This record gives sequence, structure tokens and C-alpha cells, in this order.
Amino acid sequence: MSTLTLPTAEDVIQARQRIGAEVETTPVLRSKAIDRCFGMEVFFKCEHLQTTGSFKFRGASHALSWIQDDCSGVATHSSGNHGAALAKAAERRGIVAEVVMPRNAIKAKIDAVKAHGGRVHFCDATQSAREAGLQRFVNDGLIAVPPYDHPHIITGQGTLALELMEQVTGLDAIFAPIGGGGLISGIALATLTQPEEQRPVVIGVEPQGADDTRRSLEQGHRIKDHHPNTIADGLRALVGTLNFSIIQSHVAEVASVSEEAILKAMEVLWRELKQVVEPSGAVALAGLIQRLDRFQGQRVAIILSGGNLDLPHPLIEQ
Amino acid sequence: MSTLTLPTAEDVIQARQRIGAEVETTPVLRSKAIDRCFGMEVFFKCEHLQTTGSFKFRGASHALSWIQDDCSGVATHSSGNHGAALAKAAERRGIVAEVVMPRNAIKAKIDAVKAHGGRVHFCDATQSAREAGLQRFVNDGLIAVPPYDHPHIITGQGTLALELMEQVTGLDAIFAPIGGGGLISGIALATLTQPEEQRPVVIGVEPQGADDTRRSLEQGHRIKDHHPNTIADGLRALVGTLNFSIIQSHVAEVASVSEEAILKAMEVLWRELKQVVEPSGAVALAGLIQRLDRFQGQRVAIILSGGNLDLPHPLIEQ
Repeated sequence: MSTLTLPTAEDVIQARQRIGAEVETTPVLRSKAIDRCFGMEVFFKCEHLQTTGSFKFRGASHALSWIQDDCSGVATHSSGNHGAALAKAAERRGIVAEVVMPRNAIKAKIDAVKAHGGRVHFCDATQSAREAGLQRFVNDGLIAVPPYDHPHIITGQGTLALELMEQVTGLDAIFAPIGGGGLISGIALATLTQPEEQRPVVIGVEPQGADDTRRSLEQGHRIKDHHPNTIADGLRALVGTLNFSIIQSHVAEVASVSEEAILKAMEVLWRELKQVVEPSGAVALAGLIQRLDRFQGQRVAIILSGGNLDLPHPLIEQ
Repeated sequence: MSTLTLPTAEDVIQARQRIGAEVETTPVLRSKAIDRCFGMEVFFKCEHLQTTGSFKFRGASHALSWIQDDCSGVATHSSGNHGAALAKAAERRGIVAEVVMPRNAIKAKIDAVKAHGGRVHFCDATQSAREAGLQRFVNDGLIAVPPYDHPHIITGQGTLALELMEQVTGLDAIFAPIGGGGLISGIALATLTQPEEQRPVVIGVEPQGADDTRRSLEQGHRIKDHHPNTIADGLRALVGTLNFSIIQSHVAEVASVSEEAILKAMEVLWRELKQVVEPSGAVALAGLIQRLDRFQGQRVAIILSGGNLDLPHPLIEQ
């Protein structure tokens, strides 16, 4: 893939031109009960309804759009959603996808990678094991499509914010979760397409048990001691280098939320919005719930980033 | 309320004029994975995203639109969704709502009636106990708003099909669940607004454990021996008299599905469509799944009628 220079807002616009026909325009849902209870207008951007059940399909489709049909295959490491997204995007192009997954990945995500034709390879649940697993395939001549730390991925994810700002005008803020930072950095770049006085602030939210971005911002550089412990399985990665640079420049604030707050946000989403969202996908809402006072009367977007989770079966007792 | 004459398609159009501003235009969701797997185009009409979480708000709003502000209150019996809908519609008008609920109503539905300002009165889980409970309030001068066996309720529910047929043209079939029959009879009337050659067939679906409509059709009259036993708590009522007449004339077929098929349909809905739908709300999809062969290549709408259920909390294990 191309050299790693910081992408721009213009690159997000170009990414959208490349993948616009490939990805779903996801709906924006609202709830009068939530608006009334929170004292603001809340717009839920439904990326859990994106192809493969997460925003990751945008970045993967964009990365694939730069790869030749005659390549020997693509490979990645992923806790799941990027893996399924890459497998699907590759399948559409007739390209093989090898996906290195941590052994503790959830079943729904492992199944999804396989369902989309990806080949799953398990590794230990550490960053170094994931990267080593990927390196093997790169050594064999496959093209690595990293999950977040790449310009094509960042700008692909950012397309959802261009879409959102067309669907909902006059937004004051956008809340999004941070794992490796591909989503939030893409969104931050996308907001730069707006005149400064109309630009929504971008707020990132991490689980307290995976708050490497917040700690990195405090220290002024990417920390390395990262031992994630959270149910939000999509947010366990260490923030990427390009991602961190963009976050430092263009993200207003990074919040962190407890595991209990994440579960509470999931419950609000199924109870009030009737949406099945995975823990990582509910983290942004948990961040807003922590800050209701500050956004009274404003127009706030929440990114529901993914909906792939293992629910009990049967869902209810007979 | 008014005298009980059979409503017409024209009455559904008028109902929509009366309540159009009160009710949500609910979205229609699709899933490429479901379309591919089923071999047809499936359109999910999301009435679980209606105000109060079910289509019942349409009928209740319409019934209330005919009631004077200075009435001494309204009353009904309901397993839950009609009760919450009536409470909400009454609350908007500043009218008191008394709701007789069976003791085995699910907690989410009891809470919803209370949350919308309704007063809950428990009774035994039999049709006669429910009706006796309601009669008490009628004797006190309150206006009974029955859950399904009334022209205003039927035509109010039917407005969702007018909306649907504008959102999706060229539908071949509409699948909807049958409890008391308010929803299906309203839909059947609404389809009569279309020229006969473009009219979707209407297919009703009941749980096997509450298949009074199917048995009534077989016998040519409303049966009385009805002992419902199903997890689909919204579909335990006996089909109403007006409802049954309309079903006899305008519903193509009534299917019945097993409890296992209902749970399976719920799982398809959360796994593929990411929607939280209650058992009753998944029954229509279970009916389609039983008939995939017959609808190959066609355009089929599924009514997701409600989304109020008690899910385990926390939803996933920590």
C-alpha cells in the first residue's frame, strides 16, 4: 500500500468518490424519549447497519480500491470487524483474505470473517502476536491491510461523517469510540470540510480499561504500556501513529467510560432505540451520558459503530 | 365511541389525515444478506420504532382524535402495547388513562404504561377478567378504547400500510401478525386503495399456541374455545368480530408458526438486521420463512410490529 503520509480532508472527499457505490448510506435514527430525557437533539448514525455490521467496511473497501486484481491476496489482524469487512470487500473483488484473529475474539465475529470468505488464523491476544501473525503473510507476498493506521483506512472511515453532515445539518458535536483511532481520525478530518464556525466538535470515547489514547494525550506521545481490559472487544487496540497525530490536532477531547456505563448505554440503545449494538458501538453514547450538562439544547451525533455480538440464545426464556 | 360498522379503505385514508402529524413515519430497513439468503427482496417496516415501541400508537391516536377534551377519562384492557399507546396518546391530550393488564404482562410493558402516565390495574390473565376489569371503568363514565375490535382502531393501524405502500412500490405481499386482528384488518383495508392488479396479498401469521383466527376461518365463524399458550404475549387475544369479518373477506391466508420458529425469527432480526423486536413482532417473519419457496424473486414486506420485551440485564456477560 502507499506511503504513510497524513491524509487530509480532501482525501476523505476523494475516498467517498471511490467507494460511494460500494457502501451503504446508513440511516440516522432518533428517539423522542431520549431527546426529552437528555435535553438535546440526539442523532444516531447507524453504522451497525453498514455491510458486515460495522463502519469498518468503509475503510476496507477504500483500501481494496487501491489494490490490483492480480495481487496474491490481502491479509490483516483484527479482533473481528475489520477482518469481516476486509474479507467481504476482498470477496467482492475475487481476492483472497487472510485474517489473523486473537483467540479471545467473539464467536459472532469469527463466524462473520468465515461467512465472507476470509481465512481465519488464531494468535495470542497481544498486539505483538497479532503483528507477528500478519508479518508471516506479508513475507509470503500478500498485501497487508492494517486495521486503522493507514491513510486509506482513515479516509475510508471518514466518509461516514461526510454522509452524516449531509443527513443532519448544524451539528454541534460528534461522539465516536476510539480503539486504534481509524474512525475518530477519519471523522475529525471530515469535519474540516466545513467552515470553521459550522464545524462540529469531535469527541472520542474510550473504555477506562483501554484508555491509551487519553493517557497518550496527557503524556504528549503514544504510550506503549497498554494492557486492555474491557468488554468492548473492538476497542482493545493501541492507538495508531497517524491516528494519534490527527487526534492531537483535531479531536477536542477524549473521554473514558466505565464498563458499567457501557452496559448501561447498550441497554438504553435496545430499550429506547430498539437497536442491537455491540459494547464498542455503545461507548460513544456512554461518553455523551457522562456530559449531558454540557450539551443541553444542542444537536449531537452519536456513532453506533458496530452491531456484532454474541447474544444469549434463545434471547428470552420460553 | 362511534357505532360499530365495518370500516372501509376510504376510512383508512381519513384516519391518516387525522393522525399523520401525531405518528412517526417509521423507516423501512433491508438486509442484503437476508435478500440473498431468501431469494427475494424483503422490506422490513419498522413499527417497533413507532412512538411507544409498537404500531398500537396509530390506532390509539386515531381513537383519541374522536374523543372530547372534557371527557372524564379513557380506559382499556391490554397485554401492554395498546395500554402504553393509549396512555401516551391520552397524555398528549391531558386525558387520564386507566389500563387493565393481565398479571402475567411483561415488566417492560407494565413500566411503559406507567411511564406514559397510564394507571395500571392488574387482573387475571383471561379474556373475561380483562373485559370485566374494563367494564368497571365504563360504569364509572370513562370511555372504553378497545384494543382492536373497533373501526377507529382498525383504520388507525391501517395507516401504516398506506405509508408502507408509498415507501415501497410494487409489493407482492405483506406479512403481519394476528392477535386481536386490528393490525391485519387495517392493512387489508389499506391495500384496497390500490388497483386490484397492483394490490399486495395480505398474509396473517399467528403462533400455533394462539391460532384462533386460523381455526375460526376453518369453521366459518369466530371460535370461543381459546386458551393461548405462546411467548408472543402481544398475540394472545381472541380475534375480534369486526376484525374477523375483514379477515374473512380480504386476507389471503392465515399461517401459524411454532414457538421455535418465532425465536429463530427473533434471532435473524438481531443478528442480520440488528433490530430488537419482541416475539410478537417477529411472528410475521417466521411466517415468511415457512413460505420461502412461494415468494422467490418477489417483493415482500414484513411488519415488525413491536419491540418491547424483557431482555436479560446485563445483555451480555462481563
